[in-house]
Amino acid sequence: MKRVYLDHIAATPLHPAALEAMLPFLKERFGNPQSIHSDGQVVLEAVEEAREKVGDLINASAGEILFTASGSEANNMAVKGLALASRTRGTHLIFSAVEHLSVLNAAKSLEKSGFRATLVPVDKTGLVDPRDVEKALTKETTLVSVMLANSEVGTIEPIAEIAKICRARNVLVHTDAVAAAGNIPVDVKALGLDALSLAGDQFYGPKGGAALFLKKGTRILPLIDGGIQEGGRRGGTENVAAIFGLGKAAEIALARMGERMKKARALSDMLIEGLPKKIDHCVLTGHRENRLPHHASFCIEFIEGEAMLLSLDMKGIAASSGSACTSKALKASHVLLAMGMDHALAQGSIVFSSLESTSAEDIDYLLGVFPPIIDRLRKMSPLYTKFLEEKKK
Amino acid sequence: MKRVYLDHIAATPLHPAALEAMLPFLKERFGNPQSIHSDGQVVLEAVEEAREKVGDLINASAGEILFTASGSEANNMAVKGLALASRTRGTHLIFSAVEHLSVLNAAKSLEKSGFRATLVPVDKTGLVDPRDVEKALTKETTLVSVMLANSEVGTIEPIAEIAKICRARNVLVHTDAVAAAGNIPVDVKALGLDALSLAGDQFYGPKGGAALFLKKGTRILPLIDGGIQEGGRRGGTENVAAIFGLGKAAEIALARMGERMKKARALSDMLIEGLPKKIDHCVLTGHRENRLPHHASFCIEFIEGEAMLLSLDMKGIAASSGSACTSKALKASHVLLAMGMDHALAQGSIVFSSLESTSAEDIDYLLGVFPPIIDRLRKMSPLYTKFLEEKKK
Repeated sequence: MKRVYLDHIAATPLHPAALEAMLPFLKERFGNPQSIHSDGQVVLEAVEEAREKVGDLINASAGEILFTASGSEANNMAVKGLALASRTRGTHLIFSAVEHLSVLNAAKSLEKSGFRATLVPVDKTGLVDPRDVEKALTKETTLVSVMLANSEVGTIEPIAEIAKICRARNVLVHTDAVAAAGNIPVDVKALGLDALSLAGDQFYGPKGGAALFLKKGTRILPLIDGGIQEGGRRGGTENVAAIFGLGKAAEIALARMGERMKKARALSDMLIEGLPKKIDHCVLTGHRENRLPHHASFCIEFIEGEAMLLSLDMKGIAASSGSACTSKALKASHVLLAMGMDHALAQGSIVFSSLESTSAEDIDYLLGVFPPIIDRLRKMSPLYTKFLEEKKK
Repeated sequence: MKRVYLDHIAATPLHPAALEAMLPFLKERFGNPQSIHSDGQVVLEAVEEAREKVGDLINASAGEILFTASGSEANNMAVKGLALASRTRGTHLIFSAVEHLSVLNAAKSLEKSGFRATLVPVDKTGLVDPRDVEKALTKETTLVSVMLANSEVGTIEPIAEIAKICRARNVLVHTDAVAAAGNIPVDVKALGLDALSLAGDQFYGPKGGAALFLKKGTRILPLIDGGIQEGGRRGGTENVAAIFGLGKAAEIALARMGERMKKARALSDMLIEGLPKKIDHCVLTGHRENRLPHHASFCIEFIEGEAMLLSLDMKGIAASSGSACTSKALKASHVLLAMGMDHALAQGSIVFSSLESTSAEDIDYLLGVFPPIIDRLRKMSPLYTKFLEEKKK
């Protein structure tokens, strides 16, 4: 059967050139980069080469890149590490209501130890209003963390404006760019950021290879205490293969970004324009223009996301119903609820996110098989039956 | 030039069968294990298969294994997560003075947030006396963390006795088994443990594949907050390839343990008996019998470790001067100082740790090239010159 993978936001395949780059470090170059002997030094050079490349992707210098094992680790390190390092200056933190759970739950952990968190709202397209961030700032605020792009609804946030407001008040700004970095241009200097999280498995790099950008001179406390790795800021033997693969993926992403974005945007447009014509009560979620180019997300009324995913899977199509980090919890997404969507509609969330290898034929295939799936599922839906009966009246 | 790698404690090579097992997850099986579609489910099965295998290695059930990205992360998660989850019962913690920095620095972080830590001493062979742990226990004590084996001096601690004392007082016991697990038999039930850290790169598994054993029913707070991964206890997309490689390495380690240990012990004995005969003022560090089988460590008077490492490297031999996590700090090891060694002697630390592939010829080569290196270095050593002058008097 034809397989069409449209779940970029859950994981991208590893680019063959990134795997090729990793292999020596899974074979003969197995030394520990902290070892003084040459088996160590040769892999240390590879780690530093990758640091350059990851820096280049976001216009940071190599010394501003700290490697982590996941975007969630980078987010935890940023939120907890910056908050704790700034504790003497204040204990108030600001987040958007649509942040990833690794940010929101890190904030909850901090609240247990005496911090106070404010969640700023979003509009119905998922956008944060920078003026809301400004209003939420207090003399006690030390950190604002708002994501660059939301993986569930694709919306790209106005981070430059938010950062400008924060800088004027001497408040640190972190952005979770896990869904964005490697997929759209990201320039930490132009955005005016103090910290940024990214993850390789969102742009054809390996799982286990992720990074935190930390502006030179920014104080942070380690999340993982330990030895001298990453300048004493993140203990644990470096995962050299994953780091080197991340570096290679960053290099490729930077080189191909324009081309990838153009192609992805065309495919998303096919879906965003085509699907609501073929399916009634199918609403685009997120912002129409300010969105990730590979991202098309909808809420389809009267049906639950899981039923759609399983039916699509039987037709060879892999999609998601929101963040993979919450997929099996089967609760309505906090992102959609924060956007003012009602609980029932939020249950019908579906996200199609294309890969570099996705073709127009793949999207046509989806546009062909999905409407009959919806028809079938709606026939079994008590909510839809009720809707039709009420319509008749 | 002949290359002889004797730095097992810094990193082991990846077993070819473990790499083979990993490759599908670096190629076509790239899905996110939390995705509901079949691309996700197939990798989820692999994660669960690895969990079984890692459990088998230490006689735990699969549900008691949480995957992490490094031994240091597992240690941080255990120490911080158990201490914080038990906070209402008490805030006193006990560690040995020779713990890895990922444990000792995690303890220091906890001290900043209101916990109190007691370090129990070790004797000159690096052994903790269980009675010292008993004496250190207070009504406020909630956690004792003593390592299973020390990577710098090879000493294996009496964990079963320590755990027995703690169990009787309802105090949690964690052991850092990063240097031990996969190299010597470890049975969490026989040892009576609540938590144990292990890392694949210490037994021919991949960097980035590590685990925390957590006895069923033990409460812990996450170190990395996030989504539903690892039962909500560790956020971040699972590094499937590293996890599956860790599982394979665990399976191989369990099958070959007896054979590997016997061979490693013979090689270590060659060094432990041979080296002091060829080099004056060469002292074995750690316990003669209770030690890791692949481990031979010495302090060589009047010389600094780094000079020995660089000279050995030029002869093709990779060794270490203690933990790779501190190697470039070039401070006297806290482990050796805790064992009562004076600062000057502790600077002369050297550790040879063999691999499965190491041969008796390799050890003979070392025994041949090392004494002339020491002679040459001592000729340049002001400390040695002074010693000879004082001897003449």
